[in-house]
Amino acid sequence: MTTSREIRLKNRPVGVPTHADFDLATVDVAAPGPGEVQVKNLWMSVDPYMRGRMYDRKSYSPPFELGKAMQGGAIGQVTASNDPDYAVGDIVNSMFGWREVFNCSPKALVAAGMGALTKIDTHGLPPQTFLGVLGMTGMTAYVGLLRIAALKDGDVVFVSAAAGAVGSIVCQIAKLKGHTVIGSAGGPEKVAFLKSIGVDHVIDYKATPDVVAELAKAAPKGIDVYFENVGGVHLEAAINSARPFARMALCGMISQYNETGTPTGPSNIIQAVGKSLRLEGFIVSNHYDLYPAFAKDMAEWIKAGKITWKETVEDGIERAPDAFIKLFAGENMGKMLVKLG
Amino acid sequence: MTTSREIRLKNRPVGVPTHADFDLATVDVAAPGPGEVQVKNLWMSVDPYMRGRMYDRKSYSPPFELGKAMQGGAIGQVTASNDPDYAVGDIVNSMFGWREVFNCSPKALVAAGMGALTKIDTHGLPPQTFLGVLGMTGMTAYVGLLRIAALKDGDVVFVSAAAGAVGSIVCQIAKLKGHTVIGSAGGPEKVAFLKSIGVDHVIDYKATPDVVAELAKAAPKGIDVYFENVGGVHLEAAINSARPFARMALCGMISQYNETGTPTGPSNIIQAVGKSLRLEGFIVSNHYDLYPAFAKDMAEWIKAGKITWKETVEDGIERAPDAFIKLFAGENMGKMLVKLG
Repeated sequence: MTTSREIRLKNRPVGVPTHADFDLATVDVAAPGPGEVQVKNLWMSVDPYMRGRMYDRKSYSPPFELGKAMQGGAIGQVTASNDPDYAVGDIVNSMFGWREVFNCSPKALVAAGMGALTKIDTHGLPPQTFLGVLGMTGMTAYVGLLRIAALKDGDVVFVSAAAGAVGSIVCQIAKLKGHTVIGSAGGPEKVAFLKSIGVDHVIDYKATPDVVAELAKAAPKGIDVYFENVGGVHLEAAINSARPFARMALCGMISQYNETGTPTGPSNIIQAVGKSLRLEGFIVSNHYDLYPAFAKDMAEWIKAGKITWKETVEDGIERAPDAFIKLFAGENMGKMLVKLG
Repeated sequence: MTTSREIRLKNRPVGVPTHADFDLATVDVAAPGPGEVQVKNLWMSVDPYMRGRMYDRKSYSPPFELGKAMQGGAIGQVTASNDPDYAVGDIVNSMFGWREVFNCSPKALVAAGMGALTKIDTHGLPPQTFLGVLGMTGMTAYVGLLRIAALKDGDVVFVSAAAGAVGSIVCQIAKLKGHTVIGSAGGPEKVAFLKSIGVDHVIDYKATPDVVAELAKAAPKGIDVYFENVGGVHLEAAINSARPFARMALCGMISQYNETGTPTGPSNIIQAVGKSLRLEGFIVSNHYDLYPAFAKDMAEWIKAGKITWKETVEDGIERAPDAFIKLFAGENMGKMLVKLG
């Protein structure tokens, strides 16, 4: 018998989540049953999309249940195993984040279509890399930029939340492919980071009263691709500066996730007609056919020193709500992680 | 020497265009010069998109010049010819609408990339058909529904301005391909027309306080395709009722063309992320590679009695501004035309 601490959703947040919306609970975890393995989590991911699962509404993922541990990406190590495919010491990726220890039956998970317990060969990289640049985060950047926005030679690329986990990878993929990249981020530290990874123009949206005008200035000939993480005025700026046939990959709209009133839609959406714009939302899990290509490309880029990344780390499961809440204040640089092991 | 009356843009309209924005002028037209033909227009088209050309701004078509005759689709008959490829009596399609008579050099037009003077074999159909169902109007419906929205088996289709020139063709193409079609239009006459052409559910947007709720009721399982002619609350309704992977062909947004303040964007655009929606604007002139397929399909559908159409006709060039203005009050059923010949 071991114990595990876990974070449960206590209330459905109204507006920006607060500590009062979460509970820290301690539970007993029995020895793993037949076919089960026990995993001790080393790292867990917090991501803006999780805010959507805190609402009680139908979406592409079911809502988190009140009073239960939440879910999310986590990297752990097998500590006991009754499944011959998993050995003690294996590093595994799961969706059982927000807790320290869990049991699961890998075969039952797959049969239920609930996401696998995936063994990872880290190739000597820190395991948390597989939550970030080599995990869902990197894959989201890759899918959005290359498939959804269909990046092609000569495109000028605009990225919002460019210093975030996904945005910073998008910027670097576009740069290594030779594109002009404009990134938006908040504050001098993020601006400096983006310049250090080669972003051509950085808009500090916290320092400008008019993102629309600022983008028009940074991209006098317009943009061809927009990677959307923010929504609101950033989307308006992208539409305003879009050249004919521009493509916009809609990955997220963090500025709207905590909106309690009616959000403001892009008032210039009519330009999508005259400029033949394409705006397309996507969820990375629908594009896992690209995973082998992503894994190969990204491993090569990392090896060649063409992709770098930042992590912002909170320590301990009890800090997971802080880590999550900080996402909405933009307090993370790169990937926001919670260290559990 | 003959004379021609023409409509000139006097002022750039602010808000809904009025008669004061247009001038009727009479000009002398000389005998056609070398390589030129003289054409007497029989019919001209007025279309909502022309409102965009009345603004002084860059767009996919250049703005109309003040004090000059406007342009637009017209069907005429050759009355004199110094080009061996055109004979007196030929029926021709041009962009020299808004006037009664014109000279042009067909070869110079093509060389300048300014749109051809196209000879038409009417196959016994009334010539104005080639401004409507067999012309740019029908082609717009065809391209938007089949290429941009990529209609596929089982799709539920929502069409706004469904009783308009383009919308009514969209509805019929979707119906003849076996789809469930929901149309929105204003007033009992249009509702009756749409029911007569087989539209499954008609929303009278003038009779409902809540188009969003009305569409949700008409399409309890959601929609897969939206053909956008209106914008505003219609776009919000479509996004709200969209099923995952729905496609929206953005053809026009007539509710916004005369907006003098800041238009309201779709407040629920964030749903495009979670539902993987695609919103795509298009201009029919970028898709003329589909013209042969369109002409063949549409001719067959008309012959088989599967497509019908309505015309709303104003008589005489002096009535052209009225015809145009009526578009924005929704006073047309089907294609709005001005009879000149």
